[in-house]
Amino acid sequence: MKILIVNGPNLNLLGRREPDVYGAETLDAIMARTAARGAALGVETEAFQSNDEGALVTRLGTCAGVYDGVIINPAGYTHTSVALRDAIQACGVPCVEVHLSNIAAREAFRHTSVTAGACLGQISGLGGTGYVLALEGLVEYIGSKEKGS
Amino acid sequence: MKILIVNGPNLNLLGRREPDVYGAETLDAIMARTAARGAALGVETEAFQSNDEGALVTRLGTCAGVYDGVIINPAGYTHTSVALRDAIQACGVPCVEVHLSNIAAREAFRHTSVTAGACLGQISGLGGTGYVLALEGLVEYIGSKEKGS
Amino acid sequence: MKILIVNGPNLNLLGRREPDVYGAETLDAIMARTAARGAALGVETEAFQSNDEGALVTRLGTCAGVYDGVIINPAGYTHTSVALRDAIQACGVPCVEVHLSNIAAREAFRHTSVTAGACLGQISGLGGTGYVLALEGLVEYIGSKEKGS
Amino acid sequence: MKILIVNGPNLNLLGRREPDVYGAETLDAIMARTAARGAALGVETEAFQSNDEGALVTRLGTCAGVYDGVIINPAGYTHTSVALRDAIQACGVPCVEVHLSNIAAREAFRHTSVTAGACLGQISGLGGTGYVLALEGLVEYIGSKEKGS
Amino acid sequence: MKILIVNGPNLNLLGRREPDVYGAETLDAIMARTAARGAALGVETEAFQSNDEGALVTRLGTCAGVYDGVIINPAGYTHTSVALRDAIQACGVPCVEVHLSNIAAREAFRHTSVTAGACLGQISGLGGTGYVLALEGLVEYIGSKEKGS
Amino acid sequence: MKILIVNGPNLNLLGRREPDVYGAETLDAIMARTAARGAALGVETEAFQSNDEGALVTRLGTCAGVYDGVIINPAGYTHTSVALRDAIQACGVPCVEVHLSNIAAREAFRHTSVTAGACLGQISGLGGTGYVLALEGLVEYIGSKEKGS
Amino acid sequence: MKILIVNGPNLNLLGRREPDVYGAETLDAIMARTAARGAALGVETEAFQSNDEGALVTRLGTCAGVYDGVIINPAGYTHTSVALRDAIQACGVPCVEVHLSNIAAREAFRHTSVTAGACLGQISGLGGTGYVLALEGLVEYIGSKEKGS
Amino acid sequence: MKILIVNGPNLNLLGRREPDVYGAETLDAIMARTAARGAALGVETEAFQSNDEGALVTRLGTCAGVYDGVIINPAGYTHTSVALRDAIQACGVPCVEVHLSNIAAREAFRHTSVTAGACLGQISGLGGTGYVLALEGLVEYIGSKEKGS
Amino acid sequence: MKILIVNGPNLNLLGRREPDVYGAETLDAIMARTAARGAALGVETEAFQSNDEGALVTRLGTCAGVYDGVIINPAGYTHTSVALRDAIQACGVPCVEVHLSNIAAREAFRHTSVTAGACLGQISGLGGTGYVLALEGLVEYIGSKEKGS
Amino acid sequence: MKILIVNGPNLNLLGRREPDVYGAETLDAIMARTAARGAALGVETEAFQSNDEGALVTRLGTCAGVYDGVIINPAGYTHTSVALRDAIQACGVPCVEVHLSNIAAREAFRHTSVTAGACLGQISGLGGTGYVLALEGLVEYIGSKEKGS
Amino acid sequence: MKILIVNGPNLNLLGRREPDVYGAETLDAIMARTAARGAALGVETEAFQSNDEGALVTRLGTCAGVYDGVIINPAGYTHTSVALRDAIQACGVPCVEVHLSNIAAREAFRHTSVTAGACLGQISGLGGTGYVLALEGLVEYIGSKEKGS
Amino acid sequence: MKILIVNGPNLNLLGRREPDVYGAETLDAIMARTAARGAALGVETEAFQSNDEGALVTRLGTCAGVYDGVIINPAGYTHTSVALRDAIQACGVPCVEVHLSNIAAREAFRHTSVTAGACLGQISGLGGTGYVLALEGLVEYIGSKEKGS
Repeated sequence: MKILIVNGPNLNLLGRREPDVYGAETLDAIMARTAARGAALGVETEAFQSNDEGALVTRLGTCAGVYDGVIINPAGYTHTSVALRDAIQACGVPCVEVHLSNIAAREAFRHTSVTAGACLGQISGLGGTGYVLALEGLVEYIGSKEKGS
Repeated sequence: MKILIVNGPNLNLLGRREPDVYGAETLDAIMARTAARGAALGVETEAFQSNDEGALVTRLGTCAGVYDGVIINPAGYTHTSVALRDAIQACGVPCVEVHLSNIAAREAFRHTSVTAGACLGQISGLGGTGYVLALEGLVEYIGSKEKGS
Repeated sequence: MKILIVNGPNLNLLGRREPDVYGAETLDAIMARTAARGAALGVETEAFQSNDEGALVTRLGTCAGVYDGVIINPAGYTHTSVALRDAIQACGVPCVEVHLSNIAAREAFRHTSVTAGACLGQISGLGGTGYVLALEGLVEYIGSKEKGS
Repeated sequence: MKILIVNGPNLNLLGRREPDVYGAETLDAIMARTAARGAALGVETEAFQSNDEGALVTRLGTCAGVYDGVIINPAGYTHTSVALRDAIQACGVPCVEVHLSNIAAREAFRHTSVTAGACLGQISGLGGTGYVLALEGLVEYIGSKEKGS
Repeated sequence: MKILIVNGPNLNLLGRREPDVYGAETLDAIMARTAARGAALGVETEAFQSNDEGALVTRLGTCAGVYDGVIINPAGYTHTSVALRDAIQACGVPCVEVHLSNIAAREAFRHTSVTAGACLGQISGLGGTGYVLALEGLVEYIGSKEKGS
Repeated sequence: MKILIVNGPNLNLLGRREPDVYGAETLDAIMARTAARGAALGVETEAFQSNDEGALVTRLGTCAGVYDGVIINPAGYTHTSVALRDAIQACGVPCVEVHLSNIAAREAFRHTSVTAGACLGQISGLGGTGYVLALEGLVEYIGSKEKGS
Repeated sequence: MKILIVNGPNLNLLGRREPDVYGAETLDAIMARTAARGAALGVETEAFQSNDEGALVTRLGTCAGVYDGVIINPAGYTHTSVALRDAIQACGVPCVEVHLSNIAAREAFRHTSVTAGACLGQISGLGGTGYVLALEGLVEYIGSKEKGS
Repeated sequence: MKILIVNGPNLNLLGRREPDVYGAETLDAIMARTAARGAALGVETEAFQSNDEGALVTRLGTCAGVYDGVIINPAGYTHTSVALRDAIQACGVPCVEVHLSNIAAREAFRHTSVTAGACLGQISGLGGTGYVLALEGLVEYIGSKEKGS
Repeated sequence: MKILIVNGPNLNLLGRREPDVYGAETLDAIMARTAARGAALGVETEAFQSNDEGALVTRLGTCAGVYDGVIINPAGYTHTSVALRDAIQACGVPCVEVHLSNIAAREAFRHTSVTAGACLGQISGLGGTGYVLALEGLVEYIGSKEKGS
Repeated sequence: MKILIVNGPNLNLLGRREPDVYGAETLDAIMARTAARGAALGVETEAFQSNDEGALVTRLGTCAGVYDGVIINPAGYTHTSVALRDAIQACGVPCVEVHLSNIAAREAFRHTSVTAGACLGQISGLGGTGYVLALEGLVEYIGSKEKGS
Repeated sequence: MKILIVNGPNLNLLGRREPDVYGAETLDAIMARTAARGAALGVETEAFQSNDEGALVTRLGTCAGVYDGVIINPAGYTHTSVALRDAIQACGVPCVEVHLSNIAAREAFRHTSVTAGACLGQISGLGGTGYVLALEGLVEYIGSKEKGS
Repeated sequence: MKILIVNGPNLNLLGRREPDVYGAETLDAIMARTAARGAALGVETEAFQSNDEGALVTRLGTCAGVYDGVIINPAGYTHTSVALRDAIQACGVPCVEVHLSNIAAREAFRHTSVTAGACLGQISGLGGTGYVLALEGLVEYIGSKEKGS
């Protein structure tokens, strides 16, 4: 099983950027934690980060037949990007949306997710651990689908 | 460590109620699954279900000093209950909100959560597994807080 | 055939409560009138009243396999209760929503029904007679379904 | 007693038009059913259908002193016609609004009725039977008013 | 003269719950203070608290002929409960709404009161003293009405 | 100079229809009063009434080159008819909108006029006299334009 | 009969201020025209202009028993001033609101009048002539009331 | 193949009406152009214009079994007519909506089309040529459907 | 201790102005009642009334170091004045907002208070007695603060 | 004559991506169809696709003096991109917006186009044929402009 | 060249009022700083402050022919005053709006400026320096206009 | 001191693009003007332009420790980009937002800035000079902060 982890704008700054909101852990550390959990579950993970909406769309457009699932943190694009929502819907594999902070407890414009409706589900507010949980949830979901078929 | 799992209205009907939306697993089965994972993590779980907003509020009001964390699925009260939000905020222990279905992919009135802003975070759309993941996330969060202090 | 009639908050006060809006007939009198019509149609009716949202949800949750249809007047919960809407949707038998007064002719916040979308239909503004008509409509609907099957 | 039944736009197509939404019964059949029930109650009914907002307004403007009540299905004009609402208010006899389908369970723009606030009440979602019930409700209402005076 | 004081959800936690928002005084202390002031005015007070919307509605439904006035702090139900508003309107005695905190200075969803429109008036932001002032205002109002009649 | 007076839906009922809102004067009486004032000013007036939106549009479409100005009371179509607004804009002669009642003091849905933005101006709340004043205003406006050219 | 004409902010600049919107006539010229028409009708007029909301409120507060009616152009305060609306409601004599331009054909924030709902009626878009027509309408209205009493 | 072209209110004035917005071409000229293109494609076209919402609804109600497709320019009714939307949905043949001007570049109230959602598609802003293109698009669509079956 | 009582627009008319809404008591009588209660509590009160938003702002700007608290009834400015809200926030002494009528039970535009968020609290609907209660509440609040320091 | 065809995000996936919504034809096939039609009309076409908002903006910024017109399908950026709207407005050549699906019949957030207001017109819901029709319409428009100059 | 600087409500309190929001500099100090910069540029400045909306309107109404430009900080009136916006538009000289704090980073009701649309531009969030920059920008703008003419 | 100037989409077209809105000066000329002013103040400036949201985000992500301040004109991304707002907030140096045109005087969708709330302040409507003023304001702000520390 192979899972792609897609990270959106400004997430490359994690650890340095507003640590009281986003935590002190770097993106690399979170990706490593998630990969380790993946390895334990016999799942290969691959991480991709871009600040570019178009690059994120393009990457999702190449997932079909390559990955079994996608974990995506669309960051600032979460609240505005129909293009990304379309890409998620088009990619043909189940996606789980992750947010480090609890977006429901922040500014009003962060309460709405344009992209979540095209995903399988969403995990928010649990910091970097959210990626690990998303991986577990996704693996279980894919496993149950395979068993079902 | 002791975790309370609070389940709101209609969740007693799980398994029988619209299985295409909420899955075929009963609430007891999900609670058992979550308790098993808790046991593996050395955590005691206790489950409470009520259709009654007041009973849910009352139960949360007795958590301080008894539980280390709360997992809550407010179900239909999610979108309207300020009383429940106040109870979560007042209870003094970290809460994680869980939804079986992906509320962002359903009717517009389910896209907003009144209660989530008072929680630590939210997990939705991953079925009964969402409870298990919430437990793991909560346990890790509480552990890291304790370590920090 | 067996029909449950569910009455929401403050309806126990009928006859005494603002008679210019809700009429002078008591709830018991209306229930008796409806039961009489039911008897004439060979239908058994049972009435339930509660001021409690949770009790109404619970009662609806026990309808499946016991009643063939439900008549419900959610009163003040009509305009806010997603929990009740979910209960109606989950109960598995056809429901007809009844309002004594014409909610479209009252305050703006009474113009919207959260629950009606989960019902078969709605009757409003015809006083206690609305229950009798709801019974007739429900009986005919159930009969036609049975004939169809 | 004499009751006018006013039917709005596209209702002439009943039976042919989207039968899964509006049923397979023709308007003539529903009118006949309603007239039969009227006859049983000693009430004369008369049916009028027009696709034309102005013709509906004009017809209502001639009701005073001729009919004792009106049953009206404004169809597509329900959600937009202030002119029709004014006509109902001006006609001087009690009106009951009927909808074949449950408008609260359809597109958002069908959830609001501009005309219902000027009526005595509303029946929706009970198919052609809604007309029969409206007739019964109206007859009882008029009777009780006459008794009262 | 006899006055009922009705307290809504989470108010049983006063003193413990977010003391920076709600103060350090317990509900019992506030009720005692209010009763003392009542005694000084020759007025008997009785206090009732419930987290349950239905229980609050039921209690209000039994006020007619027993109490001369009601002081109510609907807490979290303030912003959503049409059922409670109906109960206030139905109870037939004058009610004064009290809030410990200044709801106009908190989150936007607390700026609107569904229930206040059915009350005689509202006092907010003056802590436990608000109850005492409400009592004084209510007693004066009832006295002036009696004098007027 | 020749002025057309266009009257919309339900205005044929004036005098009979809700006289407390619209006055006791019939449309014929108002038209006669306006014509008399026109005669005094050397202006020919012609009155047209229809309940039909299309007929009103058609009549306005034949004004160019025939009338020097139009007085229009769109009644219930005021608040909804883009077609009528387009007809006013297309007719090529100045129009003054008249309302018998003060629409700003009635239901919220009467506060907005879709048609007024395409008119020269609006007179409301002055009863039948509003037509006479509109005539005077229109005649003066047309006169000043002619002098100006 | 004595009529007060109240002119709000910036109207002192008429003739100089954006003449394409407000015309080239000065306020004095308009007041003179209106007074002349008043004299012809046997009515005394008095004109008052202030840029100051408070001064306008104060002036209206002294009308009772002195004037038989008021013509008011609240200018920029039209769209925002509840204080002025209250003053109109409190002044105890009938008021007619006048606007030189057609406020329905300008920016969206000018489409709504806070004050008009407290007036007898409104005249807009007919330039300085609007005051003359308002005077005529008001005189006729007052006359008919006196006749009626 | 037979295509009906339905034109709504004020379109009979084309060529004369605001030519800077709608162009100088008359409706007859546009219809002739479209018919010529139809003839070249072996398609018979028939044109119908009415200012009357009801007449447009009625015409659409007679399309089933007579025409293979409909081109409709609902003009002013585009933005308000649920009745016309219902008629399009009920008529049983594919419709393409045409607008001469680019409604997205005009007043805000023209940005929304109530009717377009019931059509196959929409062409706007391309003047009279829009009808010709709609015809081509419709013919190709119908052809591909027939081939497909 | 010294308290300033600030009264906004139209309050000079109390007793004469719509007595069914605002009561028959004059402002002077209410101020006298409040001063008497102040005297009993050993508190000096001073009353200021102006119809002028600017004068109210200026008066509040001179409170620091002179008064210990402010009671303010912003009347019509309540719902619109950011300048007054800023003045309250800037004045540096605690303010209590008072309304004679229950603003939550009147027109929708009176339900929102722009100024209340900058105050300590609000009392509404208790007539002139509201000022007396505000004084008591304010005196107690100031006392408790002084005791606390 | 030279026409640029600009295709936005996810359109590279056409044929594979949700074929029930977007059809089975690939973007290359549609471009080829359009180029063939262009060749028949003596028009050269060039196609550009990017998932990147910035790249689309940049491409439009180089159109002036190179192309005579632009056909653009902004896909997901249609509903949100002010940058793209500005680029269309800045590019100095006429643009026609194309959508494969009927955006008015899909989710509410697809009903509004931010970009269409800066275009000449829009074609939607006619699949790949929409591009061919846009080309024809654009060619005719440019030809008529050239004839006019 | 002569520039008027107009300061609105509460700005007389600068230095004392909430220094964490508005800074510790007094208005006099800021005006002196701005005058010094003006002197360096050969520009005479004059400062005017009032808490009174009407006085601000009146002052703006006397600018034409006296000043070459206006710098205005409407403070609390920024968000509500149509009268002030009209005065700016009427004054006939270019105005620049200044705010000491960044209004986009404060409460939602401060994000909108009613007056800015009538100005040349706006400077916010740069403290007292904003006035100096506005002066420089205005001087340059006026200079370039004069050069251009 | 080193300042980065970030220019968003379409600004590379300045001078050519709608010169009546954006002026005839090219971006290079404005940058040169700003750099010259910087040199006079002993400040080094560096300019960056991209049409790409992601590239703008990335550039801001590299500012910390390299630049002392940022001037940013987000152009079309101003009104929609949460990603850019996050980047401004994350970059750790003070930013001033600049707009050439007065966005408050243009289309409604340009009145709101998503990014300004994360900046120190905003300058709009003063053309290319706005950059020079932003530089001066930023330099003074940074200087005063350094002095303060």
